[in-house]
Amino acid sequence: MTRHTPRYLEIGRAIVQQITSGVLPAGKKLPSVRLLSQERGVSISTILQAYAWLENRGMIEARPRSGFYTKAVSLHHVAEPSFANTTPKPTKVRAMPTIAEILRAAMNPDTVSLGASAPSPQLFPTAKLNKIIRRIIQENPDHSSRYTFPPGAETLRREIARRSIEFGCSFTIDDVTITSGGIEAIVLSLRAIARAGDVVAIESPTYFGILQAIESLGMRVLEIPAHPRTGMDLGRLEQAIKKHKVKVCVIMPNCHAPLGYVLEDEAKRKTVELAARHGVALIENDAYRELAFGSRRAKPAKAFDTTGSVVLCSSFSKILGPGFRVGWVSPGKYRRQIEDLKFVNSLATPSLPQLVIAHFLAEGGYDRHLRRLRDTLLDHVQAFTHAAAKYFPPGTKLTRPQGGYLLWCELPDGVDSDKVFQLALAKNILITPGSIFGTGKRFNHHLRLNAGILWSSAVERALRELGQLCSAM
Amino acid sequence: MTRHTPRYLEIGRAIVQQITSGVLPAGKKLPSVRLLSQERGVSISTILQAYAWLENRGMIEARPRSGFYTKAVSLHHVAEPSFANTTPKPTKVRAMPTIAEILRAAMNPDTVSLGASAPSPQLFPTAKLNKIIRRIIQENPDHSSRYTFPPGAETLRREIARRSIEFGCSFTIDDVTITSGGIEAIVLSLRAIARAGDVVAIESPTYFGILQAIESLGMRVLEIPAHPRTGMDLGRLEQAIKKHKVKVCVIMPNCHAPLGYVLEDEAKRKTVELAARHGVALIENDAYRELAFGSRRAKPAKAFDTTGSVVLCSSFSKILGPGFRVGWVSPGKYRRQIEDLKFVNSLATPSLPQLVIAHFLAEGGYDRHLRRLRDTLLDHVQAFTHAAAKYFPPGTKLTRPQGGYLLWCELPDGVDSDKVFQLALAKNILITPGSIFGTGKRFNHHLRLNAGILWSSAVERALRELGQLCSAM
Repeated sequence: MTRHTPRYLEIGRAIVQQITSGVLPAGKKLPSVRLLSQERGVSISTILQAYAWLENRGMIEARPRSGFYTKAVSLHHVAEPSFANTTPKPTKVRAMPTIAEILRAAMNPDTVSLGASAPSPQLFPTAKLNKIIRRIIQENPDHSSRYTFPPGAETLRREIARRSIEFGCSFTIDDVTITSGGIEAIVLSLRAIARAGDVVAIESPTYFGILQAIESLGMRVLEIPAHPRTGMDLGRLEQAIKKHKVKVCVIMPNCHAPLGYVLEDEAKRKTVELAARHGVALIENDAYRELAFGSRRAKPAKAFDTTGSVVLCSSFSKILGPGFRVGWVSPGKYRRQIEDLKFVNSLATPSLPQLVIAHFLAEGGYDRHLRRLRDTLLDHVQAFTHAAAKYFPPGTKLTRPQGGYLLWCELPDGVDSDKVFQLALAKNILITPGSIFGTGKRFNHHLRLNAGILWSSAVERALRELGQLCSAM
Repeated sequence: MTRHTPRYLEIGRAIVQQITSGVLPAGKKLPSVRLLSQERGVSISTILQAYAWLENRGMIEARPRSGFYTKAVSLHHVAEPSFANTTPKPTKVRAMPTIAEILRAAMNPDTVSLGASAPSPQLFPTAKLNKIIRRIIQENPDHSSRYTFPPGAETLRREIARRSIEFGCSFTIDDVTITSGGIEAIVLSLRAIARAGDVVAIESPTYFGILQAIESLGMRVLEIPAHPRTGMDLGRLEQAIKKHKVKVCVIMPNCHAPLGYVLEDEAKRKTVELAARHGVALIENDAYRELAFGSRRAKPAKAFDTTGSVVLCSSFSKILGPGFRVGWVSPGKYRRQIEDLKFVNSLATPSLPQLVIAHFLAEGGYDRHLRRLRDTLLDHVQAFTHAAAKYFPPGTKLTRPQGGYLLWCELPDGVDSDKVFQLALAKNILITPGSIFGTGKRFNHHLRLNAGILWSSAVERALRELGQLCSAM
């Protein structure tokens, strides 16, 4: 699995691990380059490379004529975001005008974009995907001359079905419908299951696109508080379902956005059983699951579905590139409705992107790419976490993401993250203010950082400036 | 303009013109090959090619040792579809289950597809588009690694805005929002303007996708009868608006689908003024406008909009290939709402297809392609019209399309086109039954033919079989 990871990176990552876990406290001297090179049986230059990598991300520092010292704070002193297990009520979603502004600013190339949610373009297998495009053009020049009507390109549906065994499902080709990105999958699922006025339960905080979708469809939202490591309290969910005639619940048990948790299989199973018991459908946002850290592959809640009432929504946006706009849904018992709504909503999904991704999946480089991407994103998340711990005001609380690349920060009470957003944008730094992740004022001193972008001195500078802005409040 | 048209095709088209207009009645002997070659100053083989082309489409026949004779009937004997200028009432759209079936059958390669609405893949500039894709891959390998958030790729919006002068509008870049195909543009416009329960006036018959969209959004439909050449009666429309609190009207003044008419500019202007006078928004489906026959370019109704209440929806699906899924909307005063809904509905439009089309528009081959496509589609429509006139039962009425490639047939009263649809599908022939173009039973002895596909003996055979099926009822 690590066959493709350079030695210096392995060593660097091991040291990060020791720092993060508190084995190496801040200010501790690291072994000399010569000693470590002998111990690990690698060249001096490999150790120098590892130390340079650590220094570059602010984890260690060189002191003249003395050696290298740990610099990063141990995260033991940084608390996780707080969890208020309050009783929710159905509400209408207020208009969220900042969102369009945020997304537009994300397209400005001069902006340090800590605001969008996407890995750096450099992390996608661009060369390989382009090679595939060239081959498709040659072998199938008419690729875009026909509609690829729902349920979508058969080759792609076959590859997705084939892989489903690996995550505890066993889809047939007909269990998969291709959509224009993951958000279309979720919107179509909501429209298939619920009507205007119906109550949709969600984890809180939740990805703002879900809130917007619920708003635009005239549904009401019921926000179940989510713990930063264990998600929704199921007792609270059951109470809410009993009291408020919940029609459907949108969940994200793997690499939750923005909290980053990965639930235990047992928690997923219990959620599915609870929903089935009360006749509530589940829409599972699974777009980040394959980015769960560690070697064990996470299962979707859908793997525990015995009644067909879990609708699994996924996407290749976070894995292969968001510009392809290829998502998919395994619609369970709502198949007919969702396919029909796909016709109505956009008639068909673009043909070439579907073919490109199907080829990539068929050719076997997908898993290797995933492993590398996960390892790299873990590095990113650690670097961002340490920078946030260092530069943000005392009392800042941070999540410990178990996958993906999002970092959720709870700033001290007095900080208004909408203001931070505006002030930062004036300095060409884009963040996502917490306020749009919920309907009330619960998250107005929170912010979400996109740690998917490549670490650089510009990024570190941006985080330092951001910390100064917050401290000044 | 005809510089690129082969001589044989020019001559063939001139003869079709004479047959259609009745100058050459059926059974008339054509000039000998030798004589015509001398008269037109072209080679004998060019005339032979022209006669073969005419023979192949059933317009003329060779009689041994005698020469060539006209075979096609003059269309003077074929009536246009009838027009019942009845008083409409708002209704709920019934479920139309056949549509998904139709579109799925259209993907079966063994089917003679007279049912989908798209030109033959061979009519798109595939080689040139693929050349552009290769160049983009080289110059901009990261093409799909980022979201292209609404309003969409600037290069494409610039090209569309630049061309808008030619059709009587003068859009800025900001007046154009890119969508995932034309139908998304229409759905977003409906959602931006109207709510569930609101009344949407439409021309009747109308493209079934519009009816489906209205149904799925819980709106009510008011079907204004459309005359096969002059469209809606504006007096009738005004009455209906006054009586039923119409919120928005969906119109297709250019190359109406399925009727094929192109309205006079004056009629477009009056429609816009009428709507503005009553505070009714107009959604203009403009996806076929560039396929209007003849050399004068048709203007959209949007060109007469002075209040920003006309929302122009268009697409490249019928011009460059439906698999790209690139449409656009010029949202007038609904810009903010439509852009925000685009975020909610599908977040972004795929990046590469937008870039490909922007390059194609910028490079100047677009107009030449359009001229050829229009000429070819006119040939197709004539061939289909003559075959329908020949093979369909007496009393069949046919439209005289002024653009596009759709032929609308009104069969004799006793013929049930839903049954024709099922029987034809069993013979691997796909048509679109008229019933889905309206809510009542008004069009249940109508059918729509896609004359966009290449003429062939298989197509002629399919039309003959179809005629036999209808006659047998």
